[in-house]
Amino acid sequence: MSILTLLTDFGTQDAYAGIMKGVILSINPQAVIIDITHHIDPQDVIQAAYIIKSSYRYFPEGTVHVIVVDPGVGSDRRIVALEMMGHIFLAPDNGVLTLLMDEGKTGSIVSVENTRYFLKSVSRTFHGRDIFAPVGAHLCRGMDIRNLGSPLDPQNLVHLKIDKPCLSGKDRLVGSVVCFDGFGNCISNIDETSLKKIDTRGSGRMLEIKIGEHTIKGMSLSYADTEPKSPLAIMGSFGYLEIALNQGNARHALGIEKGDTITLEYGQEMHGEK
Amino acid sequence: MSILTLLTDFGTQDAYAGIMKGVILSINPQAVIIDITHHIDPQDVIQAAYIIKSSYRYFPEGTVHVIVVDPGVGSDRRIVALEMMGHIFLAPDNGVLTLLMDEGKTGSIVSVENTRYFLKSVSRTFHGRDIFAPVGAHLCRGMDIRNLGSPLDPQNLVHLKIDKPCLSGKDRLVGSVVCFDGFGNCISNIDETSLKKIDTRGSGRMLEIKIGEHTIKGMSLSYADTEPKSPLAIMGSFGYLEIALNQGNARHALGIEKGDTITLEYGQEMHGEK
Amino acid sequence: MSILTLLTDFGTQDAYAGIMKGVILSINPQAVIIDITHHIDPQDVIQAAYIIKSSYRYFPEGTVHVIVVDPGVGSDRRIVALEMMGHIFLAPDNGVLTLLMDEGKTGSIVSVENTRYFLKSVSRTFHGRDIFAPVGAHLCRGMDIRNLGSPLDPQNLVHLKIDKPCLSGKDRLVGSVVCFDGFGNCISNIDETSLKKIDTRGSGRMLEIKIGEHTIKGMSLSYADTEPKSPLAIMGSFGYLEIALNQGNARHALGIEKGDTITLEYGQEMHGEK
Repeated sequence: MSILTLLTDFGTQDAYAGIMKGVILSINPQAVIIDITHHIDPQDVIQAAYIIKSSYRYFPEGTVHVIVVDPGVGSDRRIVALEMMGHIFLAPDNGVLTLLMDEGKTGSIVSVENTRYFLKSVSRTFHGRDIFAPVGAHLCRGMDIRNLGSPLDPQNLVHLKIDKPCLSGKDRLVGSVVCFDGFGNCISNIDETSLKKIDTRGSGRMLEIKIGEHTIKGMSLSYADTEPKSPLAIMGSFGYLEIALNQGNARHALGIEKGDTITLEYGQEMHGEK
Repeated sequence: MSILTLLTDFGTQDAYAGIMKGVILSINPQAVIIDITHHIDPQDVIQAAYIIKSSYRYFPEGTVHVIVVDPGVGSDRRIVALEMMGHIFLAPDNGVLTLLMDEGKTGSIVSVENTRYFLKSVSRTFHGRDIFAPVGAHLCRGMDIRNLGSPLDPQNLVHLKIDKPCLSGKDRLVGSVVCFDGFGNCISNIDETSLKKIDTRGSGRMLEIKIGEHTIKGMSLSYADTEPKSPLAIMGSFGYLEIALNQGNARHALGIEKGDTITLEYGQEMHGEK
Repeated sequence: MSILTLLTDFGTQDAYAGIMKGVILSINPQAVIIDITHHIDPQDVIQAAYIIKSSYRYFPEGTVHVIVVDPGVGSDRRIVALEMMGHIFLAPDNGVLTLLMDEGKTGSIVSVENTRYFLKSVSRTFHGRDIFAPVGAHLCRGMDIRNLGSPLDPQNLVHLKIDKPCLSGKDRLVGSVVCFDGFGNCISNIDETSLKKIDTRGSGRMLEIKIGEHTIKGMSLSYADTEPKSPLAIMGSFGYLEIALNQGNARHALGIEKGDTITLEYGQEMHGEK
């Protein structure tokens, strides 16, 4: 079995993703190609960083993940290949692997330079077809990534600056909205670990989640947990706090934008509430 | 060969469908995974019921159809597996199998309960990944559905209330618009069998199809059968009467909504018309 | 290996493409099915002609390309199969193969008539399912195309009238916008060969590209070559001149429509410019 995933901002309106698959199958006819998604917001490296971090673990070890969200195509930005946790990642060196690399111990990292594994003619506008697809196809045939170029130190990769949630005072946590999903759920940078820093459940106080002018009281366990069209906060399936609307689109209904602040703190003691 | 189809309302903007495929391939590397569509209108169980009923027969026997249109995810709604006409269907017990089960004799039906075939950690928000994908993967490896849980009586499944076309008087048939396709064709609940109840072709009268303020005279045999931008009525490729617009979008141009009434009756004798 | 590509205007909102895949796998379980795209603008035969011409070469020899952009479905338009450059193309005879056939020497061409390779019941509205899918599946199992019907002379196929760029005077080239991609890049009919006819680089003059009220000075080598939101002209990855906007959507920002004229000529001598 040789699985290769694609994660791009190419959309599916054009032939771009299909052409990449043609190139891959020309080199590795056994490749099983899976689209993670081609609908990353154009050039949104942060969104892609969250999605690859949340997705890769559901694929078998040995999978090659090809990520082409690449505002710098045609410039002199580097392309890198990374071995980590039994998977291989091929991506522009623009920080899209930052969140992933925070997760654990990296294996080999190389700069992708060996033109022997590229298409013969490399355009300056479509490296997905000319470099990523053929290199990915060779990798999922089992080629050692060290054939691709010189080794790199993880410290030398471009590192994405992504806001992390922080404590303000003893028990107020301040995070922000990082991206949205297609249902309008607003995904934050607040994970379980951050949340535990202020977790004083059982103290008789209720957690309040504030975003813009909205205050949500308590966390929900499922989307169906509240009245229809009511905002709720939930630990989403990727392990981050989300603001959602039962049977609705929180992003649009609440007017939430990327970067909006989310504040979590414990309110007055519950028996003190009216 | 082991084919597994996916029918969901997840869209393709996010990684949800891709992640399900990763889970499936982790368990059954031989699975050939086919998207029926991921663009069911959010939580539109009726639309999904029509689509699975119209689609499954074009896949080979032995195919496993995984349907995740699941407004009740996270609640205590049941998940069921159904063997029928040589195919296997895995779906929430919310009525999405109703139309299908009206078609013929059902085989085994079980309640999906055996957590041994689920992912180890089951979220309350993404059963597509945590239950449907792994169970589907085991089924398309050939596992007997009776391993999944206790047998159910078909009568005990949730039954969707779907309006059926009915006769009003001797020769007026009243149906309704059930869903739309992406071209704006308006698909009704009127099938060949219903139509035959009032079929008196040859009597010298022309069938009139009325929807809102529009009257369409006679059925067309192809979309190209009328003037461009003219409304037409046609037996669609799934076996239901559709209201369509040659080279246009009937849904928007005619302002048709789900549930709109369609009336069919024979007009005045044709030689009586001007 | 047997690869079959799909290029349609069906969209992915409905089950149409999924059903075609079910039919294909029922006949040829080994088929590897790749979507080039299902998002051709409805019935836009010219766009499909450009895309198949630009895409097929990236697939391995022996690939079967099934093209269903078919405004004439249900009429008496012909379906044809074409062998060319080691690939097989199956399409309505509506000119969608015109640009491809201009590229080189055609092999066998036949009229697809042998109903033995169709589904048993052929609707008048969904030949994609009833004819194209099963015939394509047989072809990618290795069936000789001459089994499908009588041979045709390439001259007798419907030929699409597509504007070609032309010289106006000695060194002014006039082309037009043919289609758009999903990024809003405006793809013209001007290829390298046409461009060379007026190429006098080195003469001290700068090429000026005019579209509507916009004048772009010089060709860019990559999308990142200009200021963000500035229009640029570039030879795109498919070998045609494109008008694009760095980090933007040229189609919408510049108000460009299909058929708009693009004029290329050399301006005043550069040292004469202020």
